[in-house]
Order: sequence, then structure tokens, then C-alpha cells
Amino acid sequence: MSKQDKNIKYLFEPRSIAVIGASSDKGKIGHSVMNNIIKGGYQGKIYPINPRGGEIEGIKAYKSIMDINGEIDVACITIPAKFVVDSVRQCAAKGVKYGIVITSGFSEIGNSEDERKMVQIANEKGMRILGPNIFGIYTAEVSLNTTFSGSAIPSGGLGIVTQSGALGLTMIGQATVGNVGLSTIVSVGNKADVDEADLLEYLITQERTKVILMYMEGVRDGERLVEVLKRATKVKPVVIIKSGRSQRGAMAAASHTGSLAGSDAVFDDIIKQCGALRAENMKEAFDWSKFLSNNPLPRGENAVIITNGGGAGVLATDACEKFGVNLYDDMENLKTIFSPATPEFGSTKNPVDITGQAKSEDYTKAFDAALHDPEIHAVLGVFCETSMFTHEDFDRAVEHNYRQFKAAGKPIVFGLLGGETVSEYTRDARRKNIPVYEDIYDAVSSLGAMYSFKRYVDEKDDEIADVAIDVKAIDSIVDGARRDGRSFLFSHEGQNIMKMTGIPVPKSLIAMTIESAVKSAAAIGYPVVMKVVSKDILHKSDVGGIALDLENDQEVISGYEAIMRNCRMNMPNAAIEGVEISEMVKPGTEMIVGAMVDKTFGPTVMVGLGGIYVEVMKDVSFRALPMARTQIMEMIKEIRSYPLLMGVRGEKTRDINALVDTIIKLGAIIRNCKGISDIEINPLVIYEQGMGARAVDVRIILSKEDREVR
Amino acid sequence: MSKQDKNIKYLFEPRSIAVIGASSDKGKIGHSVMNNIIKGGYQGKIYPINPRGGEIEGIKAYKSIMDINGEIDVACITIPAKFVVDSVRQCAAKGVKYGIVITSGFSEIGNSEDERKMVQIANEKGMRILGPNIFGIYTAEVSLNTTFSGSAIPSGGLGIVTQSGALGLTMIGQATVGNVGLSTIVSVGNKADVDEADLLEYLITQERTKVILMYMEGVRDGERLVEVLKRATKVKPVVIIKSGRSQRGAMAAASHTGSLAGSDAVFDDIIKQCGALRAENMKEAFDWSKFLSNNPLPRGENAVIITNGGGAGVLATDACEKFGVNLYDDMENLKTIFSPATPEFGSTKNPVDITGQAKSEDYTKAFDAALHDPEIHAVLGVFCETSMFTHEDFDRAVEHNYRQFKAAGKPIVFGLLGGETVSEYTRDARRKNIPVYEDIYDAVSSLGAMYSFKRYVDEKDDEIADVAIDVKAIDSIVDGARRDGRSFLFSHEGQNIMKMTGIPVPKSLIAMTIESAVKSAAAIGYPVVMKVVSKDILHKSDVGGIALDLENDQEVISGYEAIMRNCRMNMPNAAIEGVEISEMVKPGTEMIVGAMVDKTFGPTVMVGLGGIYVEVMKDVSFRALPMARTQIMEMIKEIRSYPLLMGVRGEKTRDINALVDTIIKLGAIIRNCKGISDIEINPLVIYEQGMGARAVDVRIILSKEDREVR
Repeated sequence: MSKQDKNIKYLFEPRSIAVIGASSDKGKIGHSVMNNIIKGGYQGKIYPINPRGGEIEGIKAYKSIMDINGEIDVACITIPAKFVVDSVRQCAAKGVKYGIVITSGFSEIGNSEDERKMVQIANEKGMRILGPNIFGIYTAEVSLNTTFSGSAIPSGGLGIVTQSGALGLTMIGQATVGNVGLSTIVSVGNKADVDEADLLEYLITQERTKVILMYMEGVRDGERLVEVLKRATKVKPVVIIKSGRSQRGAMAAASHTGSLAGSDAVFDDIIKQCGALRAENMKEAFDWSKFLSNNPLPRGENAVIITNGGGAGVLATDACEKFGVNLYDDMENLKTIFSPATPEFGSTKNPVDITGQAKSEDYTKAFDAALHDPEIHAVLGVFCETSMFTHEDFDRAVEHNYRQFKAAGKPIVFGLLGGETVSEYTRDARRKNIPVYEDIYDAVSSLGAMYSFKRYVDEKDDEIADVAIDVKAIDSIVDGARRDGRSFLFSHEGQNIMKMTGIPVPKSLIAMTIESAVKSAAAIGYPVVMKVVSKDILHKSDVGGIALDLENDQEVISGYEAIMRNCRMNMPNAAIEGVEISEMVKPGTEMIVGAMVDKTFGPTVMVGLGGIYVEVMKDVSFRALPMARTQIMEMIKEIRSYPLLMGVRGEKTRDINALVDTIIKLGAIIRNCKGISDIEINPLVIYEQGMGARAVDVRIILSKEDREVR
Repeated sequence: MSKQDKNIKYLFEPRSIAVIGASSDKGKIGHSVMNNIIKGGYQGKIYPINPRGGEIEGIKAYKSIMDINGEIDVACITIPAKFVVDSVRQCAAKGVKYGIVITSGFSEIGNSEDERKMVQIANEKGMRILGPNIFGIYTAEVSLNTTFSGSAIPSGGLGIVTQSGALGLTMIGQATVGNVGLSTIVSVGNKADVDEADLLEYLITQERTKVILMYMEGVRDGERLVEVLKRATKVKPVVIIKSGRSQRGAMAAASHTGSLAGSDAVFDDIIKQCGALRAENMKEAFDWSKFLSNNPLPRGENAVIITNGGGAGVLATDACEKFGVNLYDDMENLKTIFSPATPEFGSTKNPVDITGQAKSEDYTKAFDAALHDPEIHAVLGVFCETSMFTHEDFDRAVEHNYRQFKAAGKPIVFGLLGGETVSEYTRDARRKNIPVYEDIYDAVSSLGAMYSFKRYVDEKDDEIADVAIDVKAIDSIVDGARRDGRSFLFSHEGQNIMKMTGIPVPKSLIAMTIESAVKSAAAIGYPVVMKVVSKDILHKSDVGGIALDLENDQEVISGYEAIMRNCRMNMPNAAIEGVEISEMVKPGTEMIVGAMVDKTFGPTVMVGLGGIYVEVMKDVSFRALPMARTQIMEMIKEIRSYPLLMGVRGEKTRDINALVDTIIKLGAIIRNCKGISDIEINPLVIYEQGMGARAVDVRIILSKEDREVR
């Protein structure tokens, strides 16, 4: 985990900048960068560095950074890759705080050695590296544009952090077209040193930045990202596009940036846990960012649709369900509020239908009613173009009302359907930052994103759920297994750990012979289950190493013989230690609970529908640790099969508390026991409320080496 | 089921039209309609009808339709609702073939009586009614525009059928803006007589119509729609937007058109079965329609992405997975094809990355390589705006290559990301009908829709799967139950029907007393299951009416007593006929299979994951009957839990043939036995390949009255 960078302010607000590779040659990046810095109106000191010296763009150039007499906050490096390491060494010696390495030709093409070296040299002197392989940085705070982008960057409230340079440049273009001003845009490239979390730290506190938009392909230090993201999203919306959703996309991402994209399902759940808004594509990300930076949050959940067409109202209703916008449905109150604004053949139900005869003043009347009623918290205005509407009518019906709502702190969005008039009006209105969309789904999507953000902000920060466990005792079991040369624990070892942690397991005994198997079964009480014990056999059922529902001595004897026969036949080289005899567990709801050290996000827990359905239904949800009890409940409610826990078809509610407790306990193990990398209970059988749970099968995998445990 | 309408040609190609309510008064709909007919350039005979006679728009007006001397194909009725029935009566008497009733104020506001009457009067004389409550019809075939739309309608290849008038008018606008010409647009309104299926019949054979776009809220005669849709989609793409996806949306739809929207899950599956493309919103529907009407179908599944940015390539890859576009992945061949067109730091893998240095000629080189290789069937060109691209560069890289591909019969789509240049170029190019999109997802969505259509067209029309059953014997069981006053069959009756049809059920016997229960259990063989038999108890497990795994006489006795006690306590008024003793079924994969007479689509089958998971996981798929065996397999493959049938974790493949056979047999029952409306087997336990299946629980519900059986 990287530490928080106290100097990060100097990257965004440098008092001086050196451009290494500054040039008067228009074909060179060093020229474009110089040019953008000057044209951008940067007021700090500018030091062009070029071995030929002289003047560049009217500014005295230095042959070497060492020749400069004064402090340098940022050095922007644009020279060819082979010279970069030396240049970084000089910068570090000079006391430069940040190196912005635009140059490419490092880990993205396999040259990780130079990349590692430049970071090491820099870090030794307290210098940090942004990049390499980036387009630079634009920061409105000091009007500094070190990019080689051809276009001027409009200033405003959107802060962008992008892993892809090419997409970053297109985002500058899209921001200009969409009239979205930027507070900053930073390209992180290969993320050799500075990463998204470092940049977020600054953007959280920077007032200028109202909304943060991030394009990511891979995550380096997921634990830190989670921690910083959680703080960021409590203050301002963070919209994330992470490509590599698809398996093939993830492959493409890994091949082109050299960073490993984790499983998308894990990323998706954890990003949501952090309160960030995940957009699917660039259009959605920009729509959301723009809407969120210009509009007030709703004070409550009651949204209303006002429309002049029934069909369009139905489409809008569908869209609201899809994007999680709740339609107000107090029919009596809706009638009271909207009757005065609704003609005879209209409807005051939600959608409020003011009919195809509605003129702009009729919309205003209905919008006013919604504006002034405190029970209504957000409005979706839907227009089907009719002969009632010219450009001016739309102006009256849309812009005027938008201003009223904004002033009153109530969000409103508009979906306009129609031809040339709508198309032209929409273009104009969007330039004025009025939330007007040519498709109803786009309008509702933005409002839905706003609601997601609001709900997260409103969540209470509950106390982290934790439990004391006997780490020493667990570590000693792990050490024993390691001495055996094993990378996993035997079933009975896992069950011992469960017992120590207070997770109930079926009674069980180990037997090495037929005789002791029969004795053990009698001691436990029939019926029993028998499983092979062998460090060489991980999937016991696949090799016939399990016998179920043994009801008497005779069945135990033949079960024992069958298991030995099967295992010898299927895995002739496996060393068999004996069998484990366990109590046959009463049926209940079978869940899976897991805890693992995720490659990206560190200690992570999982819950889902268990038994044989795990792999097929993939009905699981993930969270990064630590978490509060309420958040664990949210996680459980997220799975599709949650109703099973609430009891279906007359069954009683299941003991959900026992499930939550088990998750907390596995979480405590994975956070504190440095030798364990994966624990999985499947099934964890959950009984009726108050009757607890039983961990039937426990698999524990050891870390390759002891992890760092905090 | 309505019959096919032999006259439908006259609605789209009338030789003469009467406008009832034609007017010189500019405020009236009768004026707008007359005006549009004349301005539209209709060459047939026009008869304005107005009680005042005289001339309207320079054409002699008649006081009554009866005064006209000549045949009238279509009468367009625009007079107030209270006069419509009389007017229809006169039209019918005059021998008019189609009445286009624009007037509203009928079933949509509760006045179903007049609506029913006008249809009856018309139909008696062989006249059909389009509407009421519509905006009219535009038909390019005879340049006839009877709508009251304010804008001219561009002619072309898209045929639109819409249930919502307001949305229909906005579609005319969107068509104009998007430069999509229409072959026709018809509003069906209340669908009192003519419905979508009637109109489809004509559009299937009309050459002018290349793509059909339908907006629907409810379906009247689903069986006919399915039959006609299946034929339509074999010939041309049909894009459907059906609103009322969400539960609340369905409520809104029902309230506003008076037609009942069926379950959206059923609609969705059956529409897909018919090969239609369901769009989620208007934008998607128009994008697809436009792309499909202007572009050649791919000859195979191999698509290639060509990009100048790695990040954009990853986004494109994600989009391809989402929309079902298969990326070609023969790495060797890709290398051969694209090496000459790819610079050193690029990639010939798919996405083919020609790097940020790529100019328009580099794109052309790569596109050419893809164009000339027969292994590549579709191309997605992705552009991140760079300084290499002016408007003219885009012209060269996009339009030129588009024409080449189109001429060669290979589809290509373009996703352009960037600022002002991209935005302007895209606007221009779309006016020329070049498939250029400002978001990659939109581009891939259209290509995905094309692939869905192509795959359906390529499907073989396999023989319908059917089986002979003893309808008489089943009918007599149904009749017996009806005589008892029951609306459902007892479990043993259901099992008898299963046995007659050759669906294996567990052995079972009925017992009225404890003594006979014990005897029956012994006859069947332990362990057994016991269930209450009562016509008053449908959900037996909810009232404690089931005892499982009874292993001996003593357990049968106490099980019997418990069931009687539970049922008397929970349903004191239920008449209990006895208990059913059945063989305890071996465990296997539990599926659910159902057949029902769907309100909308008629005989329909369902398959899914069974047991207690049905309601929670909702992992089911639906199809309208009849179907081929291959289609039943497709249906089974669609469920998420299909891998369970293939065997997970070392299990053997399940007897999928037994599942298919059961579906065919239930289908035969529901199609042929007029007294049955619902059959559900849950669970149908499926064993290993060759070991068959067992219908454990069978529920059969009777029709209120005998249905018409074809």
C-alpha cells in the first residue's frame, strides 16, 4: 500500500515547471507542450530545457536542469525513452517534486526495467513520477496545460483521471462539445508510481472539482483505492468507466497496459460498495458527470413524470424502474396536487398526463405544482413534439422551469421526442447545460445516477463489525501444514479453526481403519457421512471419495471399502491418511460464504447461494473488508436468492444473524491470519431463525508466503 | 383468431378515398388531412364529404358518401365521436373497404359500446376498421398521407406500425432528422378491428418495405401475431419496442390503452422465438432500423475491430460481448492479414491496433485488408480523434471505405470518439446514411442486432415436434372433475394423464384409512412419501399436508396422523378424501416444465430450474407452440442453469432427451385437450443420460370452459 503523498498539491499547483525536451520545432511534443503551457496562461516560472540553450517561444532555455537557479516543483519530460532515466536522476538531484513523464516506450512495450529504475531513483530523493506513457496534465487551479492536446481546454468543475491517453484526448474534445468545463485532466499511463488514489486524495479536498470521472483498465493497489474512494464519494460523485468487463476485453486490457484486470464481478461489487457510479460507456459517463455537476440533489425519493403522451409516459415508467428512480404513488395526494393542472381526459396518476393538447403554459402549470409541493422531490418532464411546440415554446416550457427548479434546489430532467425542432432545441439547451435529452432512457439514466449517489451519501457510517479470534492458535495449524509441505488445510484442520472461531461444524472424528471408522460412527450417532482424508485429493466427490447417509455399521464398512477402492483407482498415487466420519447434517438453506485475499482489493468476503448451484447460478456478491454489520446485510440482500433466506412457500425466516456472524468471523480470519489466503464454507447450512447454521464443508488454502497483516 | 384479410392491399394502395369531415377550416383535423392528401401527391380519386357541400381545397365536396358515383376503397373519418357509428353504417352500405377512424373518444375513455358497434356494422358488410383513436396512415406506395401530421413524410424503406399516436408523430420527426425514409406509417390506436398482424401480412410481401418497426403496448391476438411474425422475420427484420416492461409500466399501459399487457418475460421470450428484435427504447429502435435497411448482412460470424487506441479497443471488445458480436480469433491468420497494415508498436490481434499515429490512409489499408479477406465477415472501425484527423480525413477514412464495403456486401460500422470535428463529421455522415456513431456501444449495438437477425434467417425450419395422445381419455378425466365441481385435477388424476401420455411418474396408491395406507406403502416398497388428497387444498406443503421419507409401518401411521391433524387445524373446512402414498423418488436434477394457455399467446410451454428455486431464481424460459425439437433444445439452453443438465463437478450429463420429450408431450396435451388450461410438473427429476426422468408433482388446472381447439 502506497502512503498518502503530502506533496500532491505541488503536482496540481506547481509554482514552477521545467520542460525537458522543450523545442521550437513544431513537429515535436516538446513544442506542443511549451506552446500549451504559454497559451494556457500559466503564471508560475517556466524553464525550457534543451541542450542547445538559447530561447524557446521567447523564454530563456537552459542546457541542463542543474543550471537553473531556483526551486522546481514539476519537471515535464518529453525526451526519447533512452534519455529518460538520466534525466530523472538529474531532476531528483535538483530536488524536483514531480516528474511528469510523457515519453512512452516503457512497460507497455515490455521495457519494465527502465521504468522501475526511474521510479526508484526518483523516490530515493522524495521525487514522484506521473506516467510514463501519458499525455500530461491540465490543472485549472494554476491554468497549467502540459498536454500536447491540440485544443484549448475549457475550465470548470469536472476532474478527469484517465489510464488511456488516447481516450483522455477524446474526453477533452467531448468536454468541449458538451460544454463541460474541466478542473483537471490527468493521464496516469503506466502508473509506475503515482496512481488514481494519489490523485483522488487531492481532488477530494479541491473545491473547484465538483465531480470526478475516472477511466480505468486495471487497478494496482485496490485496498488503498477502496479506502480513498469511500472518502471521496462521501463528498462528491465519482463516475468510473472500467473497461475489460468482458473476459475477452479483460484480456485485451491486460495485453495493452501490462496491468492485470481482476475479475469484473468483484470490481463491480466493490466499486458499488465504495459509492462510486460505474458507467458502461463514455456517453453515459459524460451524461452523468455533466448532470451531477450542474444540478441539486433530491431531498427524497418521490419522483414524478409529467408527459403529454401516454405511450411516452409508459416508456418513462419502464426507464424509471430500470434506473432505480422511485415514482411517487400516493394517488390521493397526486390528485390534489395535479388536478388543477390536468385537463379532462388527462390523468393525475404518475405519469401525470396533461394530454397532447398541452401547450408550454400547461407544462409550466404542472411543473409549478410539482415545484411547490414538498412531497415531490424530483421531476421528469416528457415532451412528444406536437404542433403546439416551436423552439420558443420549448424555451418557455423547459429553460424557464429548469431555472426555477434549480433555484429551489429540486432536480428536473427533460426527455424530448420529435423531429428537427426538438433536435435543434436540444442542441441549444445542452450548450446551456440544461439537462435535456433526445431519449427518455438517457434522461432517466442521469437522474438514476444522481439517486445512487444521494443514497450513498445518506448512508450512516456504522461501526466496523469485527470479532476477536485466536490468531496464534490458527497460525500454529497453518505452520504445521506448511511443515508437511501442504498448500491447504485438511478438512479436520479447517473444522478445528471453525470451532476455535465459534462457527458451528458437524461433529466429526478421523479414523485410520475400518474398525475405528465403525467405532467413530457409533460415537457420533447414525446417520453419518464419510470422506477420504488425503492431501493429494482436493475435490473429493470427483474421485468417489465421499459416502453419504450411512445408517449402520454394515454401511460404514462397505462405504469405507468403496472409498478406498475409488480413490486408489482414480488417483493411484494419492497418499491416503484415513477417513473422516461426520454427523449427517439436517437439511436447511445451503449458502456459500468465502473470504479471500483478492489480488487487487486484498481482504474480501463473498456470500451467495451455495451447494451445487454456485458455479452455475453465480448468484454471489463481494465486498472489500472492513465492513459494518449493516453493510453485510446489504451485501446479503443483493443476491437474487435472498428471498430463500426470508422463507418461501410458508417456510420460516432463516437465521440470517448466524450468516452475518459467519461472514464477520471469516473476515476476521482473513484479515489477521497471515498464512491463509482463501477460506470457503460450502455449504453453510442455515436453519430457522434462532437455530443457527452449520459449516458442512470448509476449504482453506494457504498463502504462498506470509502476507503483510495490518 | 382473426382471419387473413384478402383486401389489405386496398388499405395501402387505395384507388379512391373519401374524407368524412373534410373542411376548409384550418383549425380542424379534417382540414389537415385533406391538405396532407393533396400536398402528398396522391393520384387516386379524392372525395371530400361535408354536409355543406361546395368545394374544399379546390375539390368538389359531397354532402353524403351515398351521393358519390363510384367505388370507394378507403373512407377517412374525422368527425366527432357521436357521429361516427352512423357514418360507418353509410360507408359499409356504400361498399367502402376500409374505414380509417381518426376520431377518438371510444374504448380509451371507456366508451367500448360504440367501438364494438362500429366494427360489427362494418364487418357485416365486409368493411374493416383501422382505429379508432389514430393519426391516420401514410403509404408511400400511392403517395397517400391521411395523417394530420404537420411535417412532410420522407419516403423510403422503413415501415412503421404504432399503437401510440403521439409517439408515431414523433417517429415521423425522428425519421426526417435521421434521414430515414418511410414506406408507410400506420397508427393502430385502439385496434378495434385491424391489428398489427393484419398490417404485417401486407408489409411482408411489399418490396418497398425493407425493415419493419413496431411500437406496441399490448397484444390482442398473440397466436396470430406469432404466426405472422415468424413469416415476416424470415424475409425482413422486424424491430419491436414494447413498453410496459416494468410492472408499473405495464399498469400505466393498461390504464391508458385499455388493452392488457401480458407478462413481459413471456412476451420477451416469444418475440425472440419469432426472430423479432426487441429494442429497449426509441433511439435504439431507430438506430437498428436505419442500419438494417441500408446495409448488407454479414456472411459469417467473424468480426474484426480496427482501432487507433488501445483503450477504445477494449471498450469495443466489451461492447461486442454485450451485443453478441463474435470477434475473430485465429491469431495466425489475423497476423497474416493485418501485418502489412500495422506499424511496429501496434497489434494484429483482434482488436487490431494501428496506433495513435494512424492517418486516414492507414485506416484504409487496414480496412482493405479486412475487405478482401473472405474469413472476415464484419468490421468495426474505431477512431479516437487525434491531430491526424480533419473533417476531410474522416471523409477519406470513413465514407470511401464504407462505399467499398457496401459494394462488396460486407457490413462495416464506425465508432468515432472526440470533440467538435467528430461531432460535425458524424452529423454529416449520418445524413448520408453512413453508419457512424459517437459512442462505440451504439455502433456495436446495431451490428449486434444485424447478427441476431441473420442468425434467425439462417435457422433451418425443422419439422414441428408432436406426439399422438389419447385426447378422449384425458377429456373424460376432465369431465369427471368438472362434474365434481372442481377447477383442477387431483394429483392421482394428473398422474394418470402422465401415464397415458408416457411421462413416467412415481408409483402411487390412494388410501382412505390408516390401515390401507400401511398396506399401500408395503406394496410400493419403502421409503415412501404421503400427501393429502383434497380438492380444497392446492398448496399441500403450506398446510403440512405432506410427509416425506417414511421408512416403515410405524412412520406411515404417525405421518398419516400428522397430516390429518395439520390439515384439520390449518384448513378446518377442507373436505379430505384420503392420502396418496408414493414411491420416494431418487434424487436428480430438479426441473420445472409447464404448459399453459397464455392469455395473449395461447398454447405456450415453459422450462426452468425447478424445486423451491422457481419463484426465487425465476430461471425459466417460454415459447409459443408449436415448435421443432431443435427449438425446444434452444429454449432449454437459454436458462442460466443449463450447465446443471450438462453435469457439473464430475457429474454425468442428464437425460436431456427425456426433458425434451416431456415438453413435447405437455405441449400436445395443452394443444389438444380443450378442458385443460395449465399443467405444471415441479419437480421433474432428470437422471443421467439414458435413465429418463420422473414427474414427481403434477398440477393440472381446468379451463373455465372448453376452449376452441385447432
